[in-house]
Amino acid sequence: MRRHLLSLSLLLAPALTFSAPNNIIYMIGDGMGPAYLAAYRYMQDDPATKPVENTIFDELWQGMATTYPDDDTYVTDSAAGATALATGFKSYNGAISVNRQHIPIGTMMQLAKKLGKTNGIVASSQINHATPASFLAHNKSRRNYNEIADMYLDYRIDGKPVADVMLGGGTQYFVRDDRNLVSEFKQMGYQYADNWQQLSALTAAPALALLAETGLPAVLNSEQDSQLATLTTKALQLLTPAKKGFVLMVEGSQIDWCGHDNDIACAMAEMHDFAKAIAVAKAYVDKHPDTILVITADHETGGMSLGAAGEYLWLPKVVGNVKATGRSIAQQLKKAESDAAALALWAELTSITLTDDELKQLLATRQQDETTLRKLSNQLVAKYSYTGWTTGGHTAADVAVLAYGKEAKAFAGFQDNTQIAKKLMQYIQQTK
Amino acid sequence: MRRHLLSLSLLLAPALTFSAPNNIIYMIGDGMGPAYLAAYRYMQDDPATKPVENTIFDELWQGMATTYPDDDTYVTDSAAGATALATGFKSYNGAISVNRQHIPIGTMMQLAKKLGKTNGIVASSQINHATPASFLAHNKSRRNYNEIADMYLDYRIDGKPVADVMLGGGTQYFVRDDRNLVSEFKQMGYQYADNWQQLSALTAAPALALLAETGLPAVLNSEQDSQLATLTTKALQLLTPAKKGFVLMVEGSQIDWCGHDNDIACAMAEMHDFAKAIAVAKAYVDKHPDTILVITADHETGGMSLGAAGEYLWLPKVVGNVKATGRSIAQQLKKAESDAAALALWAELTSITLTDDELKQLLATRQQDETTLRKLSNQLVAKYSYTGWTTGGHTAADVAVLAYGKEAKAFAGFQDNTQIAKKLMQYIQQTK
Ligand SMILES: [Zn+2]
Ligand SMILES: [Zn+2]
Repeated sequence: MRRHLLSLSLLLAPALTFSAPNNIIYMIGDGMGPAYLAAYRYMQDDPATKPVENTIFDELWQGMATTYPDDDTYVTDSAAGATALATGFKSYNGAISVNRQHIPIGTMMQLAKKLGKTNGIVASSQINHATPASFLAHNKSRRNYNEIADMYLDYRIDGKPVADVMLGGGTQYFVRDDRNLVSEFKQMGYQYADNWQQLSALTAAPALALLAETGLPAVLNSEQDSQLATLTTKALQLLTPAKKGFVLMVEGSQIDWCGHDNDIACAMAEMHDFAKAIAVAKAYVDKHPDTILVITADHETGGMSLGAAGEYLWLPKVVGNVKATGRSIAQQLKKAESDAAALALWAELTSITLTDDELKQLLATRQQDETTLRKLSNQLVAKYSYTGWTTGGHTAADVAVLAYGKEAKAFAGFQDNTQIAKKLMQYIQQTK
Repeated sequence: MRRHLLSLSLLLAPALTFSAPNNIIYMIGDGMGPAYLAAYRYMQDDPATKPVENTIFDELWQGMATTYPDDDTYVTDSAAGATALATGFKSYNGAISVNRQHIPIGTMMQLAKKLGKTNGIVASSQINHATPASFLAHNKSRRNYNEIADMYLDYRIDGKPVADVMLGGGTQYFVRDDRNLVSEFKQMGYQYADNWQQLSALTAAPALALLAETGLPAVLNSEQDSQLATLTTKALQLLTPAKKGFVLMVEGSQIDWCGHDNDIACAMAEMHDFAKAIAVAKAYVDKHPDTILVITADHETGGMSLGAAGEYLWLPKVVGNVKATGRSIAQQLKKAESDAAALALWAELTSITLTDDELKQLLATRQQDETTLRKLSNQLVAKYSYTGWTTGGHTAADVAVLAYGKEAKAFAGFQDNTQIAKKLMQYIQQTK
């Protein structure tokens, strides 16, 4: 009887209408709502030419996806968003690939590992942050950073950790008083790097690089040119020998963090870093056609708009002139030796000419805490660039779905965010 | 030599890779940014089922389009937006199908008329408002309402006005002290209706219906069920006999007006009215397969977000309980005979329970002008539903492009807004 049902279900199963790509590069711009893509386009616009040039995002645009979680809020957090994108199932805000009953939901990387594929994650946050965590671990709360880090080592499939390549930040969680996960990974044969120079010493998977205590430096403040592109290049180099193909997840983690700060200059720098990583991935697909590149976001952050306060105007040039994040500007202004030095620093870092009232407000706020000063700095950049923000949290906007390479058209049109994971898992199922 | 060049250009012209639909239904949701589509989906969500149901917008979603105008603002107004959508060329904010030198740019409806097609426009604004105007007329400024109305009659192609069917509002501009355009249209053989009951008396093109002095009533305040769907049904009935096919433009004009007011309940009612008109058009395509339906927006209005002020939450139910626009609520509260009556009215019209401080603020504002009271009313609905707004104007968000029927896939992916018009004009060019 069992056999009968099985063969019947095989008969009823729809014929495969796709040709499964062997390799998957899955890139997630955390918080990258559609307005971020438009903003980045206008930031990159060459004023010498009349039409606005398409960005790499525009060129790969296929469809849109919902972001709502499995509760009554309609507004997702990064954990529920990543759970949907990593497993094909929605869950509650805070969930790391567990359902409402806290039962683990299998992730695409666990499936890939089981079927002999090689897995990699790259993030500009700590690598045990919500988005990468949802691909590798299970936890009822994203806040249990240490438990999640432990699981990266302890959760085994056929005796091996789920990820073969992990590049990002997070020594604080992996080298702890109570446990040194880095030593344990090394004992298991993982190559290890803890600074950018050592990256080149990573020559084969398995490999781990933790380049900061928590997240990597914000791109706008960083001396490192192209953080994510560098890590993506390294991950692809390490994954290419994989015998049964690979699944690589690359997160532009800090687009979201800039959004939470309502810091448009910070967000645009992270978008640029993410765009350069996408260019690396796209070039990889061109050379390795048995690969699909899918790019999306887990949600929008900040309710960002181009144009604000009744003005029919957005000024990317004002944004482009800002040389540091609001956090860094606040730190630097607080440290300045005099009000005059602080004002000179403001001019140097932002190129924004304030009114007398605003100058007074800036100096008065310099006497308060750094957070208040950071908020004022970001508000002034928003005001002078006509950037609007409605929240320090997330919104329920739909997000773009971009794709390139084999089966890219499967991501065209409107879709639920869970469909993206389900399609990719169908491809992984075809691993031979 | 001339002939040589011509034949060379014919040789070099790419082979036609499309099969031109004979009929075009082009629907424009004025101000309908992508967040409006998501908001409408969550408004329509059946709470009894776990997944959120797709709306008709979601089902037809093909791509995205830019909205930026031909100046340095990146943020378009409705005139420049409609000019791009009607002619395939961008212009400056305020332009009605003229370029920066004020030279007319040919519109798709003028081309269609020249080639023997029949044209119709439907709008919930006055029919000489920026969007329909850009399909039928030319003017250096959208504000020249009377000149634009005059042109609807005076601008002739082969002796005939450009539009054969015009349904919407606008008696104020068409029946004036200095000129009665309605009489002149009647003399030319146009059937005429000036109320909803008379609509059924319009039996054949050419026909004109002006159902309000300026715009139609806001849907949320209107006793008329399905304004745009009724007009779209009538327009399609009048256009169907067209010997060489037709071009019909239907504008959901007031989505934008609600956006300018930052009135989410108003916007969602207009979206619902627009959605019902789309359903009429989609059913028409099903019965008349030689038709393409394209739906887009000219820009986003209001910088609207689902979620605000740090809360990971949007409450469509709060929006759904609001029974009148902020304008109407303000009017009614002003007219109330006592504070107690005003508060009872507020409760009845919004179902929102205010704090004591908010109740005091509402009563104090009732003593001020209607605009101030309207703004407060809309702010309170926004606050309790967690809807964010950044502006009373427009933003530079990209907009959705939906399509259905013949050649619908031509509108997939990312495109400049001018490409939509250019593709439709290619189809019109193929009129036999
Ligand atoms: Zn976030
Ligand atoms: Zn408008």
